[in-house]
Amino acid sequence: MPNPTAAMLVIGDEILSGRTRDANMHHLAGRLTTHGIDLREVRVVSDDETAIILAVRDLSDKFDHVFTSGGIGPTHDDITADCVARAMNTPIDVRDDARAILQAHYDRAGTDLNEARLRMARIPGGATLIDNPISAAPGFMLENIYVMAGVPAIFEAMLASILPTLTGGAPLLSQTLRIQRGEGDIAGPLKTLSEQYKDLAFGSYPYQKDGAYGANIVIRGTDKARLDAAMVELNQLFPE
Amino acid sequence: MPNPTAAMLVIGDEILSGRTRDANMHHLAGRLTTHGIDLREVRVVSDDETAIILAVRDLSDKFDHVFTSGGIGPTHDDITADCVARAMNTPIDVRDDARAILQAHYDRAGTDLNEARLRMARIPGGATLIDNPISAAPGFMLENIYVMAGVPAIFEAMLASILPTLTGGAPLLSQTLRIQRGEGDIAGPLKTLSEQYKDLAFGSYPYQKDGAYGANIVIRGTDKARLDAAMVELNQLFPE
Repeated sequence: MPNPTAAMLVIGDEILSGRTRDANMHHLAGRLTTHGIDLREVRVVSDDETAIILAVRDLSDKFDHVFTSGGIGPTHDDITADCVARAMNTPIDVRDDARAILQAHYDRAGTDLNEARLRMARIPGGATLIDNPISAAPGFMLENIYVMAGVPAIFEAMLASILPTLTGGAPLLSQTLRIQRGEGDIAGPLKTLSEQYKDLAFGSYPYQKDGAYGANIVIRGTDKARLDAAMVELNQLFPE
Repeated sequence: MPNPTAAMLVIGDEILSGRTRDANMHHLAGRLTTHGIDLREVRVVSDDETAIILAVRDLSDKFDHVFTSGGIGPTHDDITADCVARAMNTPIDVRDDARAILQAHYDRAGTDLNEARLRMARIPGGATLIDNPISAAPGFMLENIYVMAGVPAIFEAMLASILPTLTGGAPLLSQTLRIQRGEGDIAGPLKTLSEQYKDLAFGSYPYQKDGAYGANIVIRGTDKARLDAAMVELNQLFPE
């Protein structure tokens, strides 16, 4: 059975303007690979209602799981929850369970649960809350969409709590051979080898270092024995 | 007149598997912002023909410019040029001008222009070549699509050569105020201020450091005087 598929939707003007370098994509990619879920696409869109709604619908239709990052804080530019609700044609309002979590958190901190903070208790009907062990404001899952914070520490904590609940497939294994020859010399034999192992994926990632060309050849698959066999042949094709 | 819009398409299994951290997105975002082109969306798709073709078509329709990164080398997984040609319904084959560039490069290096390397001279009909000062193999532009290498040094060199040829708008300026209060305290006054400056974009990017919460408030726009005026008011709202 093929592995479940996933997409990520990153909501953030700060990444598209070049102000911030996204960190959550790389983290999610690594964790999903280990868990046996194939991350097939990532989209980064701006804090724009139409763009978010269209992307949520499209990715939710195409993939088994959609993970979003960003836009669930208390400020006016935090519109992810409302957009996800609209994309899924679900009503959204302050929900009692989310409000109680925030109330308890701010009571402990001696901080007022003001109108802005209460925005973080806006949760679509039918959604399940995702625990936020760091700053309380919950994420949520609605159908196949997992709405999480953009702050990396919180994103990672939320992901850690939901990933065990998702059925994964076989973890994607990979092995790498670094070949100190130009890709143009590697390409022919590599293509022939890849055609003998159609159940594996062969990637070639060129580099240039100190004026010399080389490539990292990465073989990926879920069957360790096949991967080992292909690596043996690859080593024979390109002895050091 | 509003600034031209752009999207980026990153082609690469290595990013979706978590093996590599993308570097070109951050570089492109910064350069476009300075040049006055609004980067509205980034997509990362795998080395899959259908996924690339659909993304190219969709982004080419929606935005003024589309910049692609990756998949134009000599190996079997380098399918970007063929996919872009198919997406745009244009024939593709080895083109004499591209072949001549490669031939001269490999002659100088004393390397054989073999069948695999010749793949890098496959250029869609009607496309204009983009110079590659590092490893010769050219990128190309076809309609509003700019096809560039994934290796960061080459991507950056190619972008540097085409960006001056693109009409930009007003550079997007930004100013940042770091406020050492929780976002929940900032949100109300910030929303009110943002409604008085609808020509500017107000972003709030929370952080947590040494147990204390704070946020970087970023105001963006193209009119420096307006930006300065908004910053004065923001400073008054949140004195140090």
